[in-house]
Amino acid sequence: MDIRNVVVAGGGVLGSQIAFQIAYKGFHVTVWLRSEGSIGRAKPKFERLKGIYLNTLEAMKTNPAAYCRGLAPSPDLSAEQIDELKANVGRAFDGIVYTTSYEEAAKDADLVIESIAENPQDKIAFYTELAKHLPEHTIVATNSSTMLPSAFAEYTGRPEKYLALHFANEIWRNNTAEIMGHPGTGAEAYDETVAFAEAIGMIPLKLRKEQPGYILNSMLVPFLSAAEALLATDVADVETIDKTWMLATGAPLGPFRILDIVGLTTAYNIGSMDPRSKDPNTPQGKIAAMLKQYIDEGKTGINAGEGFYKYGK
Amino acid sequence: MDIRNVVVAGGGVLGSQIAFQIAYKGFHVTVWLRSEGSIGRAKPKFERLKGIYLNTLEAMKTNPAAYCRGLAPSPDLSAEQIDELKANVGRAFDGIVYTTSYEEAAKDADLVIESIAENPQDKIAFYTELAKHLPEHTIVATNSSTMLPSAFAEYTGRPEKYLALHFANEIWRNNTAEIMGHPGTGAEAYDETVAFAEAIGMIPLKLRKEQPGYILNSMLVPFLSAAEALLATDVADVETIDKTWMLATGAPLGPFRILDIVGLTTAYNIGSMDPRSKDPNTPQGKIAAMLKQYIDEGKTGINAGEGFYKYGK
Repeated sequence: MDIRNVVVAGGGVLGSQIAFQIAYKGFHVTVWLRSEGSIGRAKPKFERLKGIYLNTLEAMKTNPAAYCRGLAPSPDLSAEQIDELKANVGRAFDGIVYTTSYEEAAKDADLVIESIAENPQDKIAFYTELAKHLPEHTIVATNSSTMLPSAFAEYTGRPEKYLALHFANEIWRNNTAEIMGHPGTGAEAYDETVAFAEAIGMIPLKLRKEQPGYILNSMLVPFLSAAEALLATDVADVETIDKTWMLATGAPLGPFRILDIVGLTTAYNIGSMDPRSKDPNTPQGKIAAMLKQYIDEGKTGINAGEGFYKYGK
Repeated sequence: MDIRNVVVAGGGVLGSQIAFQIAYKGFHVTVWLRSEGSIGRAKPKFERLKGIYLNTLEAMKTNPAAYCRGLAPSPDLSAEQIDELKANVGRAFDGIVYTTSYEEAAKDADLVIESIAENPQDKIAFYTELAKHLPEHTIVATNSSTMLPSAFAEYTGRPEKYLALHFANEIWRNNTAEIMGHPGTGAEAYDETVAFAEAIGMIPLKLRKEQPGYILNSMLVPFLSAAEALLATDVADVETIDKTWMLATGAPLGPFRILDIVGLTTAYNIGSMDPRSKDPNTPQGKIAAMLKQYIDEGKTGINAGEGFYKYGK
């Protein structure tokens, strides 16, 4: 694998996590942002991540449950080894370069990970401008959750080196990376990206072809929708539905605990893509109305302290 | 709760488990079967259940992992307490009465649980004949997985005392009971059935209204179908799909491990209810073709030693 210099475009929740994890694993990271204002908004996210990484590593010295797979390949670490990892956190934080310049970001890039807003026009504009400055060998990957790489391949100037590399939230703990090409992605760029995912502590999950929602959301969305429908049509209550799933499958969380983590706004936005959600008499319409009521009451999930369940502060 | 005498109609996999568990919990159980031949085929199932219950209880003396929730409300049991439970197994086995007579089965019945073949005509014939002999107070419950109680209520002669009481396979371990009325079910019969479910060691899961597939299958079927579609359309392989689900949700089993337990024939039969499965170009049609190929090769799941995975004998 020849990747050393990585550009992450976007400093949102996921973008900042991706950039920080890659820097933590020893790569040189440049964060590209649209404006100085974006840099100002992104930097506190990196401060916070530094704290999370340091605190988690410190906790791993005494508490086996604190172990996060993205931080080290094995939980069996001496205090000295953990202190070395903590030094990596400091180096990662200090080493990240921020820029608003396409030229500066692109010039030495071996890999660019696009994690900007989920807006096709923004993505097309970004790829088109980026392509003017990138070296020929650079691989470009999108972290988009909702759009397919085939929609943007032509704008990258390197369709055979363009693909999706999709991360989960809390990357240091949920260390999966779904890797998905479009029909024109070359095997070399695909394999290189798989190797890179492993090098930054991720478990690569390989898709053989394009699939809206990748692997996880292709299963999670219909499962969660079915649970939402049972509640929205008043078949059973939250606790009964969760209990049924947990007892029958041995899962640690039922669908409404998962929805509280995903966030009800995200669930509402996904549900609203279904045209049936506009008709209040369909199950989809009843789900939308139910989620909207929770959201209007501020019950958007675990981050808000309340969703389908209440959470202690 | 006034239930003492329970009739279980049907001696199939579920019927025999239901009858044995109820007898184990100290109720008087009559198994109604259609013919002497059915009795001959059912009895070895009861012999086998007796062995499973005795062996599991014995194992619980030394191995905490052997504990099954249906056998005792808590795993903290002395060897003497377990020996008492083993005596219950013997009493249960010896006490079960087998009959082909509607009159004999019905005369003292407080509760009848219908677990006969999933054929509407057979169920209508059974309920119609049974109704001629039942005392007025008897509650009648169906264990049907695929049909709604409202389809049969009128034939029972007691719609307000008719409902669904739906068990899971391996009832002594998977001790859930989904309880679902039809619009005419009375609150008294519903509550009495909930109390009975608890008395036989089940965790009652209450549905507020009729729902095809109850709670569990309403979520499990779309989830498993989504996983099947990812495989049948060649998006990813079995191991990757299972790994994705387990890593992301913390579940102990991925969808293909679950399908191997459910059985591929059952999955195929459920999928075949969808008219789109007749068109080989739809995802549903591709799923049906894929499942049929596994089934034709004898790979029907864990009970056959192979399904999506291979199992040691």
